[in-house]
Formats: sequence, C-alpha cells, structure tokens
Amino acid sequence: MSEALHEKLERALRDAFDASTEIYKQRGFQRRIGFGSRPALVSVDLANAWTRPGNPFYCGDTMDNELIPGMQKLLKAFRDNGHVVVHVTTAYQNTDRNDPNTDMGMWHHKIPVEAVNLKDEDLWAIDSRIAPIEGEYVMLKKRASSFSGTPLAGYLRSASVDTILVTGVTATACVRTTICDGLAEGFRTIAVKECIGDRVPGAVAWNLYDIDAKFADVETVETCVNYLERVSRKPSSMAAE
Amino acid sequence: MSEALHEKLERALRDAFDASTEIYKQRGFQRRIGFGSRPALVSVDLANAWTRPGNPFYCGDTMDNELIPGMQKLLKAFRDNGHVVVHVTTAYQNTDRNDPNTDMGMWHHKIPVEAVNLKDEDLWAIDSRIAPIEGEYVMLKKRASSFSGTPLAGYLRSASVDTILVTGVTATACVRTTICDGLAEGFRTIAVKECIGDRVPGAVAWNLYDIDAKFADVETVETCVNYLERVSRKPSSMAAE
Amino acid sequence: MSEALHEKLERALRDAFDASTEIYKQRGFQRRIGFGSRPALVSVDLANAWTRPGNPFYCGDTMDNELIPGMQKLLKAFRDNGHVVVHVTTAYQNTDRNDPNTDMGMWHHKIPVEAVNLKDEDLWAIDSRIAPIEGEYVMLKKRASSFSGTPLAGYLRSASVDTILVTGVTATACVRTTICDGLAEGFRTIAVKECIGDRVPGAVAWNLYDIDAKFADVETVETCVNYLERVSRKPSSMAAE
Amino acid sequence: MSEALHEKLERALRDAFDASTEIYKQRGFQRRIGFGSRPALVSVDLANAWTRPGNPFYCGDTMDNELIPGMQKLLKAFRDNGHVVVHVTTAYQNTDRNDPNTDMGMWHHKIPVEAVNLKDEDLWAIDSRIAPIEGEYVMLKKRASSFSGTPLAGYLRSASVDTILVTGVTATACVRTTICDGLAEGFRTIAVKECIGDRVPGAVAWNLYDIDAKFADVETVETCVNYLERVSRKPSSMAAE
Repeated sequence: MSEALHEKLERALRDAFDASTEIYKQRGFQRRIGFGSRPALVSVDLANAWTRPGNPFYCGDTMDNELIPGMQKLLKAFRDNGHVVVHVTTAYQNTDRNDPNTDMGMWHHKIPVEAVNLKDEDLWAIDSRIAPIEGEYVMLKKRASSFSGTPLAGYLRSASVDTILVTGVTATACVRTTICDGLAEGFRTIAVKECIGDRVPGAVAWNLYDIDAKFADVETVETCVNYLERVSRKPSSMAAE
Repeated sequence: MSEALHEKLERALRDAFDASTEIYKQRGFQRRIGFGSRPALVSVDLANAWTRPGNPFYCGDTMDNELIPGMQKLLKAFRDNGHVVVHVTTAYQNTDRNDPNTDMGMWHHKIPVEAVNLKDEDLWAIDSRIAPIEGEYVMLKKRASSFSGTPLAGYLRSASVDTILVTGVTATACVRTTICDGLAEGFRTIAVKECIGDRVPGAVAWNLYDIDAKFADVETVETCVNYLERVSRKPSSMAAE
Repeated sequence: MSEALHEKLERALRDAFDASTEIYKQRGFQRRIGFGSRPALVSVDLANAWTRPGNPFYCGDTMDNELIPGMQKLLKAFRDNGHVVVHVTTAYQNTDRNDPNTDMGMWHHKIPVEAVNLKDEDLWAIDSRIAPIEGEYVMLKKRASSFSGTPLAGYLRSASVDTILVTGVTATACVRTTICDGLAEGFRTIAVKECIGDRVPGAVAWNLYDIDAKFADVETVETCVNYLERVSRKPSSMAAE
Repeated sequence: MSEALHEKLERALRDAFDASTEIYKQRGFQRRIGFGSRPALVSVDLANAWTRPGNPFYCGDTMDNELIPGMQKLLKAFRDNGHVVVHVTTAYQNTDRNDPNTDMGMWHHKIPVEAVNLKDEDLWAIDSRIAPIEGEYVMLKKRASSFSGTPLAGYLRSASVDTILVTGVTATACVRTTICDGLAEGFRTIAVKECIGDRVPGAVAWNLYDIDAKFADVETVETCVNYLERVSRKPSSMAAE
C-alpha cells in the first residue's frame, strides 16, 4: 500500500473513530476498567514464526523497532517486581490438511496453520530477544484465543491474578480473542498499545479501537511499567531490614 | 458522520482491504471453510434493547430495512427445512454497578450492560418480527460470546449440528466473539452478511473483513437460503410416498 | 435397604476407606488444600424438586434434620460476614424427550431431567427455608456441574473469590462434578460435610471419601462457620468508630 | 486389605447397588444412552507413571492382566475400522510445590502431581504396549478431566465424532471427570468396563456404578469391539471392487 493511501486510510479511520467516540460516549461505552492489584503478562504468539522474516505468519511492520523493545521493557518490569509471566505459542502435531483428525481442528480451513508443526521447535519457540526465564509458563495453544482449549483461566486464578496485560500478534486474531475472553473470565484486561502487531494495513488501528470501546483499556508501555512498579509483590529492601 | 466523510471512509477501507487481501492471498489466508451437512442458526442479541429505538444498545442503521427482513427470510428457510434455531439474548439479575457481586462480572466496567435487567423482560425479549416459535431454544448469556459461560457448544453437538450461521448485533462484540468461538469449538462457521449490524460507522465493514480473512465465510442471505434448502432434514413428500 | 445391611455396608466401607487411606498416605494423596481469604458459597440444586417429597429427584434421607439446618447456619455466617452466595438450580425449556433439539442435550438419555420444566417455577425454585435474599445470584444450569455451560468461574473471579464452599445434592452427580471443576478452575474447594446429600445408600460416603482424597477438603459446618467469621469482609463496628 | 475384607466389601457393595438400583429404576435413572455413529477412543493417563510399577500413580491391580490386554483389543478395532483415537497424558513444566505460579494450579495441594515433570518424558509417555501410531493425537492435560483446559471437545466436534469410549485410570479422578464432561459436551459416552482401573479397593466398583446410573453406559470390551466393527468408516474391500 502506497504512503499516500496509508495516509488517507489513517485520516479516514481517525474521522470514523471520532464519530464513533461521540456515539459511544453518549451511550456510556468506552469506560475505563482500570488496573487491579495482581497483574500477569499474557504474551501471545511472539514466537519466531510470527516475529522473524520469511514465514507465512511474519508480522514485520513494527516488530523490531517498537514491539520487541516494548516487550523488553515490560518483561523487565514484570520480573523485577515478581509478577506472573505467561508466554503463549501455537503449534500442531498433525499438519496434514487432508486428515480429518488433525489437531488443527477447523482452523486450517481458513488460515495456513499447517505452517507450524510441533516438530519444528524453532518455529514456535519464543523469540530469543524476549526468551522465557526459569519458572515462567510457556503455554501451547491450538486456537486463536489463549483461553480457548487451555488451562489459562484456572492457572491465573490459582496464581491469584486479577489483571492481565496482553501483548503480541495478531491484533485481528489471537490478541483480540485473548482480550475478549480475558474480560469474560473475570480479569481486568489491558491491551498494551506498542506491543500489539499485525501484518495488514489498518488492522491494529481498528482492532485496538474496538477493544478499547468494549473489552479492555488500551494503555502505553510507560503507563503499564509505572503500574507494575507500584504493585510490586517483591518485598522491598526496606521491609527486609 | 457526514455523507462525504462516510464516502471517504468507505473508499479508504476498500483500498486497505484490497492491499490486505493481496498479502493474505500470498500467504494462504482467506480460505473458504464451506457449509457442512447439519446447520443451526445462532442469532445473537436481536432483542428489543438492540433492535428498537430509544435504548443505549440500539443499532439503527440497517435494522429495519435489511437486517430484520434478511432474518425473516433466513428463519423461514431454517424452519421450512427442519433445521435447529437458537435465539440468544443478554440480561442481568443484578444491575447495580457498585455491587462487586453483580452477575455483570467485569463488563459494566467497559460498557453500559446495566441497561438490561432481567426484570424488564420487554428489553431482552427477542424482537416480535422474528419471534421464536415453539421448540426453539432461547438462550440467555452474560458475556459477549454466545459460547462464553453457556451450554451452546454441547447443545449443538447433541443436536448433531456441524455448521453454524451467525447473525445479529453487534459486529464488534457479540457477533464477532460468537464467530471466533464457533470456529474454535469445531463448527463450520458462516457470517450472514446482511443480517449483521452495529451502531458506529465502519465497524461492520472492518469486522466482517477480519472475520472472512480468518474465522468464518461471509455469505449473503441468498446463498444461505439456497444451502438450507439443499440440506433439508425434513423428509420430502416424494420420500413419503 | 434393611438396617442390618446398612450397618454391614458402613462397616465394609469403613474398612475399605482405612485400607485406601493407608495407600493414599504412603503415596502423598489426601493433602489439605485449606481455606483461602475470599470465600463464596456454591449451593447446588437445593430447589424443591430435590428437597421436597414427591419428585423423582427427592433426596429425603438427611434433608430435613441435617442438610437444611446446616445450610441455615452456613447462610447466616456467609451473610453476616458479607461473603458471596450463589444458589444454583436446574431446569429446561424443552422437556420433550423425543425432540433432538431439546436443551436437555444428552442427559435425558441417562436420567429423568425432563421432570424439571422451566415453566414449573415451583419445582426449580430454591427451597423457601434457605431462600435467596436480594443481591444473591440464582444461577440456572443445564448440566451436572455448576461450572459446565455457565458463567460461574468468571463470575467468581470478578468477585475476587479464591475459595468455594460447596453444598447441596447429589453427592454422586451435581455436587461432585461442581467440586472437581472448582479445583480445576483454580479455587480452593471445600465440601461441607453435613450439607451434602443423595438418594441412594452409601453414595454420600464413597463420594465424599473420593473427594477428600483428591479434589477438596471435607469439613464440618462448624469448622466452616468459624472460618467465615474469621475472614469477615464486613467492617467491624470497632473500625466504624 | 485382606482377602476376607475384600469379599465383605464386594458383598456389601453388591447389596448397596441392588438397593440403589431399585430406587433408581423406580425414578427413571440408569437409562441407556447407546452408541452413536461416529466413535472416538479417549484413553486417559495410560502412561508409564500410571501403568508401570514404582511410581506414586501406579495402578497395579488389573493393569497387566486385564486393562492393557483389553486396550490392545480395543485399539485394534478402532484402527482397523478407521475411527479416531486420542491418547491423553498429564505432566507439568514447573513441579515446585512452593512456587505459587506453577502450572499444577491448585491440584498439588491435594495430590502428588509434582511427580510428573515434563522433562521426564519416560514418565508421561504412553505405555509402549499401547503406543500411539502416526496420526493419533497425544494430548497433554493439566487437570483431572480430559476436557478441562484442553481443546478436546472442539477437536472431537471437528472430527465429526458423536460418541466417546473412555478408558484408563483412575476411575476416581481422571476417568470419571472425563466421562461426566463428555456427556455435558454433547457426546454419547461409554465407559469400557475392563479398561478402567484405580489403585484403592472398591473405587472402580462404586465409581462405575455411579457412572452407569447417571453419566455413561458401562459396556464390556467385547460389546465395544462388536460396535466398532459395525460402524466402520473404512471402505470395505467389497466397495473397493
């Protein structure tokens, strides 16, 4: 898409969002859900198949300059303050599109999920720039939402989590469904603006707009980092004296 | 939003969709899932609170001229051919926003769900123009998705359904989440174009675009009606002879 | 079943439980999960169809002398201390066993769930001796478990609950499945001994034995009441001064 | 437990079951759900940690003489006739009981699930006597039920399955919860008598009794094999001519 068309799209979306916001405000939508007291990071599909060039799932746009650096800041704040981190990825045992018994279920009838076979660990491994550390849960999913067909909701409840910060790709699919389910499962849900990507023009903008209107607060990395430090679960050195 | 801005938005979205489609096609997205052999209609939130003027949830735009007439054609085809019909609606027992124990869960922190109290049956009753008939399941939900916190998936499985046609409002919230979950739960999922609405500019267009790329086939009422007649579960009069 | 056979059964079960406990202890089962800090009561199917004579679901045995009085003590402790109370009941819109589209799903192929039609409100209404009060959630389910096809897990999470006390009938079906799911969904789960009933000999004993070994702590009403007073969410009158 | 006590237990349980069956029959319980037209095998936790001596989960009793031979006959019938087979096993990434963020959730507070770490593949690998073959789904779960926190229900629906035959260990926990959930998710559910085990006296008997009364038909391996051959999905050699 040409630079000129991009600009037209951005302007048109901005106008649409302004008009929508007027309607939403009149009717009481776009409320703030706010941060709770026990956060977890749910980082969706930031595995090589999505973060590194040369794969059907690659989301190039802001990956190297904005998304990964934002994730690095977030991860530091989560880890320094003793909060829960979950890394989610996606892969399949049986990627034969003609086998009716494949664990891809119905999804390969819409998108090329057959590209990620469990045997190709390099494809579904979390990007090394934001690699999991000892004790962080790396959760394999089969569907778009990190909550669909996974133990995530029960896991977060048993870890006393009440708030989830969601990052990753894509805004259109796995991130948005994770956010919608997060709210439904009873968590205060936050979408971290710079850490959500996609691979087609406009998709991040309109999906974050919809999300902020109805499902989760969209907040910057900076706001999130400030919050994470405020609710530290680590005993301070003061307290240790 | 002025007519001129609307036109600019439509043109800009069309350009964005064209550019995205090029990327999606190259990478193997936007496949057709197709119709299966045992369909059900899942009609979401076409209750008075959403279909009749004067309520925070009213989705006026295409309601009277396109959505309801489309639904009437669909319902006739479902009923004439003996297929399963589910009407979904949303309401709450406790609409006190200050009570932490409300069955609204977390959602009233984002949108005005307190507007639909179970005691106001007129609000959550299905619109009389498309009223349920004897034997059709009217299912109450609390969250956006018709599958979230409901027995819908198991119900459809026990009725031998393999395909769902999804209609209703809004494209942004309850329809989109229902469609994403429908696919995840193993159903061939179809979004019925003219029978899906919303209340803000552009939202139907971009949500159907995302849906068609990754979660469900978007099909017209006419295509759906033709299909429903083709897979009739009613014994034909021929067969009865 | 004669008194003599009852005694023989009890003795034989006691011996079996002793032998099993030895094995379980050696292998590290039968641990204590303990009470958390934010309890909710999940009271299952204590509606007239189960609590009052003359219905296929009636569980007579200990109902009037033990279960209902125990529930009254528990409810008082929950309410006096500001804790969450959920009353669960079961009923169906379509109780035609020959209709493949009934919301009974598959269950009427095993048990007579067709006995509880939604139109007979008196049948599925909570027993008046333990009637819900304003603000308490009365939740309708279709399956055995209170978590299956309901918004219960998300509801409890949004109310900040970390512990559930489960009561009701029957030990074999709705209570046991609710308890197993409660643990899986991340809640500290407690089975309240005197407040769980059934309708056939031995069933309460062996189901509570299995539950205590693997899924939940079985505790008396007295222990539960003491706990509920200790974790009061109500500000004390002291604090108000 | 001595042979004499075992006999007393069996006799007492038989009497209790007889008395219960009388009550159940009067009230319309213990119905037959029957076999459907598209079966799948759901084989639960027949991995080395449960099937081979020297582990906290070992279920010795009937394992070598009855359960494994029964499974071999069943597997042959499933495979010869082209039916779906799912092998379920259980293991954890983080088996530190003191880490509140372990993926064991709440379960290690009741039973020693810390014994099965994902790194010890030999422990959670399916027993080699009934090893999975190419294309059969090996599904990892974290909770008791094979449906809890897994994509199983959606997987089975997308494979057009309407009937599940459940086998494995233990009757008390993972098998029983899988069966209860299977029914709730809309599948005709069959418990295969000789292929279900446990590790404590009486537990198989009373759990299968409860299951047959309310959740699934208990059937022998022979009956199941006959059924599997009758509903073959493989084109017969006749048809191939």
